[in-house]
Amino acid sequence: MAKKATKKTPVQRGKSKKAARGTTREKIVGLAEAVIGDIGKAENPTIDVPTRTLSNVSFDKRKGIIEMGDAKSERPFFDLGNAKRFMQTMLMSSELLKLQDQLKTTSIRDMFYRCKHTVEGTKEETFNDQDESDPVIEDLEVTLGALREELRIFANPDGAMVGPMTIRDSGDEIDLSRMGSGGWAVPSIVEPDVIQFVKCKAKFILLVEKAAIWSRFNEDRFWEKHGCMLITGRGQPPRGVRRLCFRMAKEHKLPLYVLVDNDPWGYYIYSVVKQGSINLAFESARMAVPQARFIGMSSYDAAEFDIATNLSIRLNDKDVQRAKEIMNYPWFAGRNWQREIKHMLKLGVKLELEALSNKDFSFIADTYVPQKLKKKKWLD
Amino acid sequence: MAKKATKKTPVQRGKSKKAARGTTREKIVGLAEAVIGDIGKAENPTIDVPTRTLSNVSFDKRKGIIEMGDAKSERPFFDLGNAKRFMQTMLMSSELLKLQDQLKTTSIRDMFYRCKHTVEGTKEETFNDQDESDPVIEDLEVTLGALREELRIFANPDGAMVGPMTIRDSGDEIDLSRMGSGGWAVPSIVEPDVIQFVKCKAKFILLVEKAAIWSRFNEDRFWEKHGCMLITGRGQPPRGVRRLCFRMAKEHKLPLYVLVDNDPWGYYIYSVVKQGSINLAFESARMAVPQARFIGMSSYDAAEFDIATNLSIRLNDKDVQRAKEIMNYPWFAGRNWQREIKHMLKLGVKLELEALSNKDFSFIADTYVPQKLKKKKWLD
Repeated sequence: MAKKATKKTPVQRGKSKKAARGTTREKIVGLAEAVIGDIGKAENPTIDVPTRTLSNVSFDKRKGIIEMGDAKSERPFFDLGNAKRFMQTMLMSSELLKLQDQLKTTSIRDMFYRCKHTVEGTKEETFNDQDESDPVIEDLEVTLGALREELRIFANPDGAMVGPMTIRDSGDEIDLSRMGSGGWAVPSIVEPDVIQFVKCKAKFILLVEKAAIWSRFNEDRFWEKHGCMLITGRGQPPRGVRRLCFRMAKEHKLPLYVLVDNDPWGYYIYSVVKQGSINLAFESARMAVPQARFIGMSSYDAAEFDIATNLSIRLNDKDVQRAKEIMNYPWFAGRNWQREIKHMLKLGVKLELEALSNKDFSFIADTYVPQKLKKKKWLD
Repeated sequence: MAKKATKKTPVQRGKSKKAARGTTREKIVGLAEAVIGDIGKAENPTIDVPTRTLSNVSFDKRKGIIEMGDAKSERPFFDLGNAKRFMQTMLMSSELLKLQDQLKTTSIRDMFYRCKHTVEGTKEETFNDQDESDPVIEDLEVTLGALREELRIFANPDGAMVGPMTIRDSGDEIDLSRMGSGGWAVPSIVEPDVIQFVKCKAKFILLVEKAAIWSRFNEDRFWEKHGCMLITGRGQPPRGVRRLCFRMAKEHKLPLYVLVDNDPWGYYIYSVVKQGSINLAFESARMAVPQARFIGMSSYDAAEFDIATNLSIRLNDKDVQRAKEIMNYPWFAGRNWQREIKHMLKLGVKLELEALSNKDFSFIADTYVPQKLKKKKWLD
């Protein structure tokens, strides 16, 4: 039976909502010291892990982001249901400490292999597969209050950026206005110790959902004409791209415009950039950009820009269902958003960015976005 | 009934295996002029399209690449079964000509929207969906003998590169040895008019399947220590990455080493880089790198590098089936390859690159690959 530890461990004490203080290294060591402290006092060593479920997530209207609440669950060592997870958590944190000491970064897949071995004298594996190790990493992120990037764990990198800005990446100075057709590949970890903004002449950021559309804007040198950072995450932007937008928006006060298809999935991509996601609610404060603006496509654009009706695509059942779900999210409760989504449902069609090419290959970069910017036709 | 045109159109005449000569623009215009010529002579305008089926594909042992044969099918205009496809082909080629004239590049999705409209006075659409327009673009590639990139059509870009080389990309000079942790994002189109190699100090190319492993090699500055270009295609390398490897291997005589997981999918990724693929057989001559070497992982590596058995993963039925298929491809007929694949099947397991991290985060970059290179332990 579960034997509950009633006393808070030192690392948890005195930190209500706030995460443990100090550097990431200090946080990891602090967790270990707390456990050692428990053992020294002959107590049941226990880690308090913030709860990562929907019930512990809420939308903070004032801040405009999705946040994790205060609920925690205890993970005591002397407990049949928790002992293995406790061991896994300590093993993982000891390997994470090595990353800190060796100044190396790696992937969650790597961490699985790194931690996997047979427990001496048994036939028990520390981890059977990655489905067991990934949640332990997430537990440690929330318990330590450290972003995955701060733990030196990267996600699959993806995305590209160009624009009037010079950065320093791992010591190399890179002029992002001289990156040709390819652009600078956005790495997964863009924390200030890796990436520094040296010089920034950009006036705003344009985040483009689709890589092909990004290439169109780059080829047309939109970023030069309009003085903006041009970035793509190739679909749902990966963490590196979101965090980079966050940092540019915050450190250089750049407005962020998001350009996606007109469908429920486009709306959702925008909302993750703006408010954060339910799954990663504990990271919203350092990933979400509440000032982000939805520059398009809107369900009103087909009429506004005279796009032939046969270029729209009929909404399927999944689209309609998703649109209705999204309408009920508190962060889409505003009058303008309700109007936007209802109008899409009423028309019964979705519209892709590429449909604008029917007019001209460069209509999107020469006319559509500039006109929207000029007339301030965005949603936020 | 199909009314067969018996005479070759001018664009086809005098070109047996060879594609139409001249610039891409001249090829497109040539096709149109041939059709006009047919009309002027009151003949049934007909396009001969090389056949893109397995039956028209073969492995050229001497060249070491998969090639398309000479079979062609006729596409006459006055033919109920071909008239629409004929119209689509001409419409698409006229839009492709605009790309040439405007010096713009775009996506196949864009081309679909660009060409889609209702035929005047009818309810007939030129194209109903992209499944109709994509094959027309492929038809034109083989008919004109022009790479998709030469038609100024890009695929989704993906991949990153660093190394001791300076390139010029769309006029911007980029030092690939100063690209930080992100690297230069490899664009989809890397033809000589876009990308030029200005200065190259690299001695070989290392193509890494997985982006996360690429990041490990980059963080450890493997490319600097070993003087190599370090490139990833993030899984099956996209066209831009393959074409870039081809150009570097050819223009700078750089050996190409491919690093993939030890499973049938890894073998296959390697073979596509080396011999080309059945689907894109018509592009092998300008995409495949027959000198490419498979540097790992080999099914003998677990023993060779003393990797714990519990880090291997049991082959599933799909893996076994795929391995057997691959063993029968003529380009895997060599003794060493048969031995390699049989050994994997005998062991009954596959092994991921990340398993090497169990020894040390940098084992793969500090020991594994350097040792393989030194001992010339590769397959080709």
